[in-house]
Parts: sequence; C-alpha cells; structure tokens
Amino acid sequence: MNTISEAASALREGRSSARALLDASRVAAESAASLNALAWVDWDQAGRAADALDAQARTGVPVGPLHGIPISIKDLFNVAGMPTRGGTRAPLHELGEAEASLVTRLREAGALIFAKTNLHEVALGATGENRWTGDVCNPFDPSRQAGGSSSGAAVAVARGIGLGAVGSDTGGSIRIPAAFCGVVGFKASYGAVPLDGGLHLSWTCDHAGPLARSVADCALLFEVMSGRSTRHGAVARKPRLAVPETWLRGRLQPAVREVFERLVASLRADGITVDAVDVPLITRGWEAYTPLVRAEAAWVHRRALADGGEGFSELVAPPLRAGLTVPAADYIASLKMRDALAAQLEAMLSHYDALIMPGNAVLPPKRGQTDIETEGGMMSVRDAVLGQTASFSFAGVPALVLPTAPVDGLPTSLQLVARRDADASLLALGRWFEARLTAGA
Amino acid sequence: MNTISEAASALREGRSSARALLDASRVAAESAASLNALAWVDWDQAGRAADALDAQARTGVPVGPLHGIPISIKDLFNVAGMPTRGGTRAPLHELGEAEASLVTRLREAGALIFAKTNLHEVALGATGENRWTGDVCNPFDPSRQAGGSSSGAAVAVARGIGLGAVGSDTGGSIRIPAAFCGVVGFKASYGAVPLDGGLHLSWTCDHAGPLARSVADCALLFEVMSGRSTRHGAVARKPRLAVPETWLRGRLQPAVREVFERLVASLRADGITVDAVDVPLITRGWEAYTPLVRAEAAWVHRRALADGGEGFSELVAPPLRAGLTVPAADYIASLKMRDALAAQLEAMLSHYDALIMPGNAVLPPKRGQTDIETEGGMMSVRDAVLGQTASFSFAGVPALVLPTAPVDGLPTSLQLVARRDADASLLALGRWFEARLTAGA
Repeated sequence: MNTISEAASALREGRSSARALLDASRVAAESAASLNALAWVDWDQAGRAADALDAQARTGVPVGPLHGIPISIKDLFNVAGMPTRGGTRAPLHELGEAEASLVTRLREAGALIFAKTNLHEVALGATGENRWTGDVCNPFDPSRQAGGSSSGAAVAVARGIGLGAVGSDTGGSIRIPAAFCGVVGFKASYGAVPLDGGLHLSWTCDHAGPLARSVADCALLFEVMSGRSTRHGAVARKPRLAVPETWLRGRLQPAVREVFERLVASLRADGITVDAVDVPLITRGWEAYTPLVRAEAAWVHRRALADGGEGFSELVAPPLRAGLTVPAADYIASLKMRDALAAQLEAMLSHYDALIMPGNAVLPPKRGQTDIETEGGMMSVRDAVLGQTASFSFAGVPALVLPTAPVDGLPTSLQLVARRDADASLLALGRWFEARLTAGA
Repeated sequence: MNTISEAASALREGRSSARALLDASRVAAESAASLNALAWVDWDQAGRAADALDAQARTGVPVGPLHGIPISIKDLFNVAGMPTRGGTRAPLHELGEAEASLVTRLREAGALIFAKTNLHEVALGATGENRWTGDVCNPFDPSRQAGGSSSGAAVAVARGIGLGAVGSDTGGSIRIPAAFCGVVGFKASYGAVPLDGGLHLSWTCDHAGPLARSVADCALLFEVMSGRSTRHGAVARKPRLAVPETWLRGRLQPAVREVFERLVASLRADGITVDAVDVPLITRGWEAYTPLVRAEAAWVHRRALADGGEGFSELVAPPLRAGLTVPAADYIASLKMRDALAAQLEAMLSHYDALIMPGNAVLPPKRGQTDIETEGGMMSVRDAVLGQTASFSFAGVPALVLPTAPVDGLPTSLQLVARRDADASLLALGRWFEARLTAGA
C-alpha cells in the first residue's frame, strides 16, 4: 500500500507525478463509489491543480514536503473553491468564509487538496450514518458502520482515494473511523492544530488531525498543520506502558480482548513493562463529556435551532435540542471534571510512556445497529464506541490509533494515549509499535 | 496620612517599629469600632509577631520590603492561625485548609498579618451590608454604604487600621469600597495574583489585590503578591486617554460628573488627548456578568445549597439559588461575550494608554438603599455601583481606582483601565494621576 513517504520519494525522483497520484485516486474513488466517502470533488479542477504542481516541480525550484500529494478534507473545514456543508441541511451560521489555516498550510507545503469527505451530520455522532448524504460504509463490509464522524476521511485513506486525509476529533471522530477502517489516526494535544475556518462541534473538545496509512505519514501531516516539529520524539529501549484495566473490564468484545491480550503478552515476553493501572476518572470523564458537548453544540447551532432546526435530521436533532436545556451547573461540573481527569492522567502518565488499550472496544457494528454485546453484556453502540475514545479528547491529551490484527476480516486497533503536549514522543512510540506489528508481533 | 513607603523608611531608619505601627492600628481600630471593619483580630498574638519582627530587624539581617508593616486580609483568604468565615454562616466546603499563597508571600516579605476584615457575605454583593457580621459602615458617614465586597479592607485602610489590605474583586469588590472609602484599590490582570487558599466567588472573574493609601503602596503589595515587577512601568510625557462616553451617559450623578469633567478639562488644558470613545460591549459585558457569576457562585456553594442553604442570609440566598437554574446556553453566551469584550477593549486600548471614568458613578448610597437617582433617572444601586466596574474584572483587564475631589464630604474617584497584562504601566499612570490630583489639578 502506498504511503505519503513513498509517494513523496517517487515524486522527488521523477518516478511519479501529482497527476498520476490524482488519477489513481480517481480510479479508487470510482471503484469505491458505493462506500460514499466523498462529499465533493471536481476532478477537472483537481487535474489542473495537479498539472500546475507537476509543472512547478519540473522547474527545479525546491518544493514542500507534501508536493503533489493528494489529500482530502473533511467537509467541515473551509477550502477555497469548494463548498462546506458539514453533512447537514441546516445553515451553518457560525462558520466563517475564510479558508481554514490548516488547509492553507497543507497547500503551502505542496499538498493537492482535491476533495471534501463525508461525515456524520455536523460531526455529532460516531457511526457515519447520514440521512442527507447517505451513510458512509465500512470498506471491509459495507453493511457495517465506517465509524465517525470523520467517516469519509477514513474510507478515503483505506481505499486509496488520496494518500492522507484531514479529520476532526471531538470525542473520537478521527480515532473511531480510523480504527473501524484499518488506518492510522492521530488526535494531537488540544490546541496544537488550528481550528479556524472550520465548523465547531464543541470548541473545548474539538481537535483537527490527520488520518493516513502510516504513523510517519500522520506525523508529517501533523507537522505541517501544527507548525510543530516531531523529530525530537524518541522511544526508550524498553518503553513503560500501562493498561487502564479496571476501566476496560466489561467493555470489550471477546475477540477484541484476545487480540489486545496477545499484544500485551508479546510485549511482556520481550521484557517490556505493561502494568495494569486504575484511572477511575476515565469513566467519569466519559459521563461528563456528553452534557458539555451537547451544550456547546447547541450553542454553535443556536440560530438554526431557534429557526426550527428543520435542516437537522432525526439523528442529530434530539441531542442538539437536549443541549439547549443543559443547566450551567452540569456544564461547569463537566469543566471541573475535565481538570480532574487531566490531572489524574498527567499523574499516571508521569510514570509511563503511554496508556495502551484497544482503539475500538467492538468490531464495526452493522449500520443501523444501536446496541451491541460485549463481554460485560449488552450496551449501547454509542457507549461502546465513543466511550472508548471520548475521555482523551475531553481531557485534551494526545491519542493515536493504529491497526492491529484483523478478526473475521474486520479491523482491530490499538490506542496509545500520552501526556499533554507529548505529541512527538507519542508519534515515536507509534512508529515503534507499527514496526512491531508489521513484523507480526 | 501614613503610607507603607513612609513607614518602611521609618522602620529601616529605626524611627518606628512593627510594635508601634501595630499599636497605632489598635488605637485606630478601637476608635473606628462602630464601622465594623474587622472580622477577626487577636492583638496579643499580633503583638508577639510584631515583637519578633522588631527583634529580627535589630539583628541587622536584611529584611523584606514589607518588614513590620501591618496588613489586614479579607476574611475569605486562609491565614495560618486565623479562622476563615467568608462573612457567612454557611459551611465553606470548597475552601481548603492551606494558607493562601498570597498571604505567605506577604509574610515572607516581612508583613505583619494582624487581622481579617469583614466582607459582603461570600463576596456576593457590593454594599458591605451583612446580616451575620453586621454592616460595614462608610468612614465618611456611617449611615452610608462602605461598598463591597472588600468592605472592611477599605475601611481599615481609610481609618489607619493597618497600612494596607488585601481584598478580592470579582465585579468590583476592591474598586467599589476603595472608591466609597477614599482609598486606592488595584485589581490587576486576571491570573496575576494567585487565588489558592481563598474562597472563590466566580473563578473566571475572581482577582485578589491590594487596597492602600497610595498607588505606590498598591504597586508594592501587588509586586509581593504576584511575584511580578512593576518597575518597568512608565508614562508618556503626554499620555493618550479615552473616555467611554456613550457608556457613561445617563449613569452618573451630576456631582460625580462635574468632578470628572473638571478633571478631563484640566487634562485637555494641558494638551493631553482625552478622546470620547464608544466601547459598546461594556454594557453587554455587564449584562453577561450576572448569569456567569451566579452560576459559578452556585457551583462553589452547591453542597451548602443542596443541604438547605440555611447559613446564607436573605441578602445572598436568592442570587445563589438563581445561579442553580442558569442554563448552560446563558453561561456559554457569557463566556463568549467575555471574549468579544476583551477583544474590543484590546483593540480600543491599542490606541490609548487607558480608559478613564469615575470609579463610582454615584456617591455612597445609604445603607439599605436599593435604588438611586442618576442623571438618567432612577436605577438600582446594584446597576449604578457594580455596573461601573464589573465589565473590567469580567474581561480580566487591569483597573485602578484612586480618590478624586470629595463632594459634600463624600469621596469620588477615578477609574483607570488598561490592556491585559499592562499592570506596570497602569500603575505608573496611576502615580502620574495621583501626583496631578495631589497638586490640585
């Protein structure tokens, strides 16, 4: 499978071109059309941009690190020359006109911004089901959920529609679809990637970030979008890892647990510390996430809701309306719980390089499925899926998801969580895990 | 009138002692007992501390800048060896045990922390009336309000019960009593003075700060409490000033306006720019302040309220209970309005050294008085008094109040407002004004 790093080498050496990469993306998009990854694309416009990049490369002027690399953008960030619809029919009163800084930065690094990707309506949900655009379907089994809300981004990367994608993650919206589609997704520390020019879901939880086919590709996209370097990131010869075992208990499907425990056993067999730890506030953080996100989302969409809210489908209108009635006391309690959780994670992670756990507690559910069986009994899909990721975006700490061994042809994943602002070392640890997993450990 | 600077010189030169200053404070406290400034004092304990400071000074070891200076502390900050009651009979569940850092810093600089001062109950109010401790009375006319909530702090400084005081200011609680009692009060930029070891009223608006008899004294106390220097602060030969005229229109009592306009005329006569400007969000900020503070105050006192709230008097129980029902949407709208107001103030203050206006829009009202006549007609005392100051603590910008010419034996004042973190230059401008005003300008 082609990565950005490989394609960039080929481009530099004249073995490939932006046009060739775009053409491959177009073939991939056509063969995967039924998965519904793309919200908007104009192949002619993209072709002209690719030709211009190729012409520029032929002049011999040094080019940026993403020169000619086709990248898609989740359809809640503004891109000059493309519409932003946010997966909804409601008017987006809070969205400005200007292009998102992160898009401009990617373009200035040479990226070929060629398409917008579909999402869960206004990013408020993690299934990828959407009444207005149609569901985004899982590339491993189209009857299953792609995950969300950056659903199209993950499907695009999984199927080669571009080599990387920009998503956003408020409660897991990069990590969940990455996990369900077998790609790498990185949600950096809160504030690392600028969010201007995008539609907010919940501005105290929102993060923008990359989905790609390798950790190194995510690191490169992150560097460009954030303006931060990650080259100083390093891994100890024997990283110290922790599993939030009490929190995971009852949450996982047996097949997911088996893959994860095999991984942990292989780590321990190599003499690597993997301690079981208790981070009790992860559960409280997930409980505190919901009222906060709903209150902020309702505030973002207050004008459309006040005007009747008819542009919102029945998948998002109820939680948005619920956000209108959250008491300030609950909102404040959530903010305080964030501080407490962040402190607890910081304290725990001062002893370890990362918390590790499955990125998806369950295999991708069927589209339309609302409840799911885990080792602990039946639970809601929302709790099983979003509950696995939300506490970490809520707390603002960096989290990386990368694929582990498939089960019955469906992807499983590993989630790594590090201290706030330890983005570079988390990415280094991610590369370390990726190498182990690729080697079959 | 004795200032900290004068007393510190006298102490250094052996012309005074901590014991002598404390004795003078005791005499002052006894003569002003009916004004009810003090919440707690133990003269014997304070006397022993004064003697220890004097003994230390005689050893010749260099001493801190506040060595031997008697300072009082508002009774919502913890002081080792003294109780903290917050002017209420309700239990203070959110208050920790540890001494406030700002108190420790003052003590480490040599201050003689000798008493706690009375306040408006839990700092939620600006009149100084208190059903549990009795009202704090205005030193110029005991039938009038001292202002609040740092009521006792201002009275203490005005009457020589200590040479400086520590108060707190959430909506004006340093500046209002300073204005009503004819002393100087300084509310620095949000976050400059640590708030640990104190009872919060509204943690996104709360500020601690000094009240004293001169701007230089306030600067010294601020330096010690914040750990920041103010010596780099400087004033242009012709400072550029602005008056938020549209906002003031209708708010002032004619006598207050007259004093202020005389000051403006004298500035202009000296060729100093004093522009009339429009900062429309000052009004919106004041409107947004109330739901935010009530929601946060209700959160701080949620356990006591849930237990029946019987320790709260009828002066604060209704606004506290109202805080329980503020919707998150209103709270969020207030947070957003803070950002908008802060941006508008920042933009305006990029052209000027300060906004200037009366610190008190009205002369001190009678105790028990709830409505007051201004040039615009009748308004509530709360609106007239707190509305004059709240937007600036809400926005987190520094504000300084200093006395101007009295009217009918009652104090008037000038409020200076500067850009966020321009504390040092604001204090320098304050000294400049103080010198002008002392010279009779």
